[in-house]
Amino acid sequence: MPDSPSIGWTKSGAVRLLDQTLLPGEVRYVEIDSIDAMIEAIRALRVRGAPLIGVAAAMGLAAWAKKEKGLTPERFAQEAARLADARPTAVNLRWAVERMRHTARAAFAAGSKNVAATLRDEAQKIWDEDAAMCQAIGQAGAELIPAGASVLTHCNTGRLATGGIGTALAGRLATGGIGTAFGALLMAHRQGKGIDVVACEARPLRQGSRLTAWELAEAGIPARVIVDSAAAAVMAGGGVDLVILGADRIAANGDAANKIGTYQLAVLARAHDIPFYVAAPRSTFDLSLASGDEIPIEERSASEVETAKGVSVYNPAFDVTPAELITAIVTDRGVIRPPYSESVRKLFD
Amino acid sequence: MPDSPSIGWTKSGAVRLLDQTLLPGEVRYVEIDSIDAMIEAIRALRVRGAPLIGVAAAMGLAAWAKKEKGLTPERFAQEAARLADARPTAVNLRWAVERMRHTARAAFAAGSKNVAATLRDEAQKIWDEDAAMCQAIGQAGAELIPAGASVLTHCNTGRLATGGIGTALAGRLATGGIGTAFGALLMAHRQGKGIDVVACEARPLRQGSRLTAWELAEAGIPARVIVDSAAAAVMAGGGVDLVILGADRIAANGDAANKIGTYQLAVLARAHDIPFYVAAPRSTFDLSLASGDEIPIEERSASEVETAKGVSVYNPAFDVTPAELITAIVTDRGVIRPPYSESVRKLFD
Repeated sequence: MPDSPSIGWTKSGAVRLLDQTLLPGEVRYVEIDSIDAMIEAIRALRVRGAPLIGVAAAMGLAAWAKKEKGLTPERFAQEAARLADARPTAVNLRWAVERMRHTARAAFAAGSKNVAATLRDEAQKIWDEDAAMCQAIGQAGAELIPAGASVLTHCNTGRLATGGIGTALAGRLATGGIGTAFGALLMAHRQGKGIDVVACEARPLRQGSRLTAWELAEAGIPARVIVDSAAAAVMAGGGVDLVILGADRIAANGDAANKIGTYQLAVLARAHDIPFYVAAPRSTFDLSLASGDEIPIEERSASEVETAKGVSVYNPAFDVTPAELITAIVTDRGVIRPPYSESVRKLFD
Repeated sequence: MPDSPSIGWTKSGAVRLLDQTLLPGEVRYVEIDSIDAMIEAIRALRVRGAPLIGVAAAMGLAAWAKKEKGLTPERFAQEAARLADARPTAVNLRWAVERMRHTARAAFAAGSKNVAATLRDEAQKIWDEDAAMCQAIGQAGAELIPAGASVLTHCNTGRLATGGIGTALAGRLATGGIGTAFGALLMAHRQGKGIDVVACEARPLRQGSRLTAWELAEAGIPARVIVDSAAAAVMAGGGVDLVILGADRIAANGDAANKIGTYQLAVLARAHDIPFYVAAPRSTFDLSLASGDEIPIEERSASEVETAKGVSVYNPAFDVTPAELITAIVTDRGVIRPPYSESVRKLFD
């Protein structure tokens, strides 16, 4: 199977995004150099996964700045603010945009003649750092996975969800950008641990059966796809040794927002005495929030869930897993454990 | 919305089945008078729901017997055995076929000149009894539903899953054939209790978002559809006061097999201190099985769960909920509670 990077630059400096809404059926790219187009791509989930949304937003700002005539600090701040609001739950988006804002302010203040070039360098740095974070998370996470383990995961946290692919030319193997939870699976597999994966479908948009399954097949990791409601039955049958998945925002107390269904997997894992791990880079933590109650949860369109005419749909994209159900959080600075109020603080000391 | 009965007789004595695979988009009927066609309809889920499968099988045997030239006891036993094996989990299928076999044996033994007519009478009786059982279950179940309750249900247990529709001419309101768990919802609604329903989608075949949603809309019951993995988040948010759903087979100790996802809803209900009710007629109990471990679980085709090329799918259609997670079972002879080993036995005394 060909290597299809999730993100890259075009020769002209636009962002080249793998359109994830078309996978696994079709590998097609979109080229983006406007804020409107990037907002559309984020909202429509052409680009998705908390870390990759951050990388894409930073690269999008750089691509737009390059072709914008007479770029001003005010205009940059305006467009950055619009982009930061594209989706509410993942904190990486805000974090990356804020970093680009800071870079722009500093460049303007220093009287830089080529702010756009500085922004491009910063976006590239955010991308490279993401790839390195994936590598670190993968290493730390793989240590938690015993030989021969059956690992359940939910939604998609692989390279499709992260910027870990280096440049389009380098390919993922050269950069080690392998995702968060998926990175742990990939490293454990490469270490010859003989693991297998149970991938939940992740309705309504099926990021598990479409994207994670595609990445698992590409990596040659033995895997089975199940519908989301089969998780407990598989656990009860002894088919799951541990759960590992990603996060879109983690509060200071360790409460973690992630794809809808994560919370119930945590409850089910606890009921079946199965370790439940969350994997996420430090950019996913939001220390301004004391607990998960404060994390905004995006409600998506009813049209994502087909039903009978005249019936309403409640379609939250995320839920919050309380810290007490999380066995450990795998970060780019190692594995942290309860009490999270302490271990999270230490992570940022 | 027009009244679309789930089952009926044609003038010529064939079975007229509402093709449930096409709902909610299209209301189309198939006419069946052969065993092969009935097996196909059951396997393809054109007709589904444990009670309705039993009714349809009985009616199918009668329709086939009518047009079969020179019907013999041996041939009847052969075809009945084939039909009983169409799907493994729901016991009502075997129960209804066994009753028809018994009727046929008795009619042949008595030297009846019109065995087919006797079989048709018996099939009609099975159907009428199913409608009456639905009524009794609905009444008993409605008493468990407090005014203003938000009730979560899974899969489909309405009139589409039961034979409770009288004849095609009479319409469901004349016969009271209203389903099992759905019957309880409908009665509580008609009693003016102001309930609302949370319907889980029930992947992969979406009997919740396609069929239950269609029936809820038809009945004018306020309802929201959610994906299966949103159940715990809705429970944690206080949006569920009780769970009620159906069963395909119940063992002597109260363990209940039902649509995949039922077991995890039971675990989640327990974790959130929410009552969990199973509604089923006595024909769903299989006293020959000591526990749920002995219930055969149908694994359906991987093609029901679309995924990436080369990835395998595990697609069990049912799971087993241990009796200790079931608050009460609503039957056509009233509500039974733990210890089920005693209360189930009393049900058949």
